[in-house]
Amino acid sequence: MSVYSPRLARLIDALRRLPGVGPKSAQRMAFQLLDRERGAARTLAQALTDALEHIGRCPSCRMFCEGGDCRYCTPARTASGHLCVVEGPADLMAIEAGTPYRGRYFVLMGRLSPLDGIGPDELGLDQLQAQLATGDVRELIIATNPTVEGEATAHCLAEIARAQNVAVSRIAHGVPVGGELEYVDGGTLAHALSGRRQV
Amino acid sequence: MSVYSPRLARLIDALRRLPGVGPKSAQRMAFQLLDRERGAARTLAQALTDALEHIGRCPSCRMFCEGGDCRYCTPARTASGHLCVVEGPADLMAIEAGTPYRGRYFVLMGRLSPLDGIGPDELGLDQLQAQLATGDVRELIIATNPTVEGEATAHCLAEIARAQNVAVSRIAHGVPVGGELEYVDGGTLAHALSGRRQV
Ligand SMILES: [Zn+2]
Ligand SMILES: [Zn+2]
Repeated sequence: MSVYSPRLARLIDALRRLPGVGPKSAQRMAFQLLDRERGAARTLAQALTDALEHIGRCPSCRMFCEGGDCRYCTPARTASGHLCVVEGPADLMAIEAGTPYRGRYFVLMGRLSPLDGIGPDELGLDQLQAQLATGDVRELIIATNPTVEGEATAHCLAEIARAQNVAVSRIAHGVPVGGELEYVDGGTLAHALSGRRQV
Repeated sequence: MSVYSPRLARLIDALRRLPGVGPKSAQRMAFQLLDRERGAARTLAQALTDALEHIGRCPSCRMFCEGGDCRYCTPARTASGHLCVVEGPADLMAIEAGTPYRGRYFVLMGRLSPLDGIGPDELGLDQLQAQLATGDVRELIIATNPTVEGEATAHCLAEIARAQNVAVSRIAHGVPVGGELEYVDGGTLAHALSGRRQV
């Protein structure tokens, strides 16, 4: 018999599946939600249900998108001629929040990692290639993480762009090598972006 | 304008209200739930809704309780004549999981803290007094945390028990002073419980 009653056990299990949450934290969260934070629990349940129902993926940039038009695929952004490729949504958010860049994005939702079965198909590279083929993109800015896998991904992206005669740049290594883009401050990111170089 | 779309912003805000979750973790949780863990998100929403609807408080021990009978207020536990007072649900769980104690409990849901407006009423001490007055309890075991506030609470509890002519004990200080009961290993807790002394 679990030390918890059935519904409490289910709640704690569900909380444990959140990233970075261990058994003790999950228990603490459950008790707090059931004790002083019942309103917060209700809000969270509703926010989750609502998000699952209404947040999907933009078919063009692959970023999370609610209903109608994607906020990152506007005509103004398309007109900039810039397309910035990032590994994940958090990287996109970091660039939006910390730099003046307002071009378009392409979110890989991962990075090349053959050992994990993540290849060009999983990252939507054929879709990216099709976008470059339209001629709307003047410059592809590669903002994958400066890690081994991120660099391998960048190399592959650069080849795709060259094959379509699209200029390619890589954000400058103001970003600490081996670090994760998502945790870099806005100033460093802005510097890295403006110091990008042709590859 | 928020950098997030409205529903995404609401989800991240709701996740931030979980204990120990900062803005970066909340964003990471939201992205992961919407990307690879949509099933987990659904499960969590359902578990929260279900828990809010069905988990209440036992009117007797004040522990979380689902529907019908409280699993900690059984006749067998009452027959033991022991009533163990803890500050919170996590302390009860730690004693249940780590010691052979199978008497009853009384969960204060806090500790005396006049500066925070937490007095005897908030901790249900009148309710505890009524239970001691029935004569069912032979010994009140005080397992509040060995912190300043926990000791003040213990002092107050001991006075209530003495006024009802109920024997009182305090769990032994095998528990590191200044520490939190919930994080102590079961062996130490069992030792502290068996080494309890009359106060
Ligand atoms: Zn888009
Ligand atoms: Zn009970």
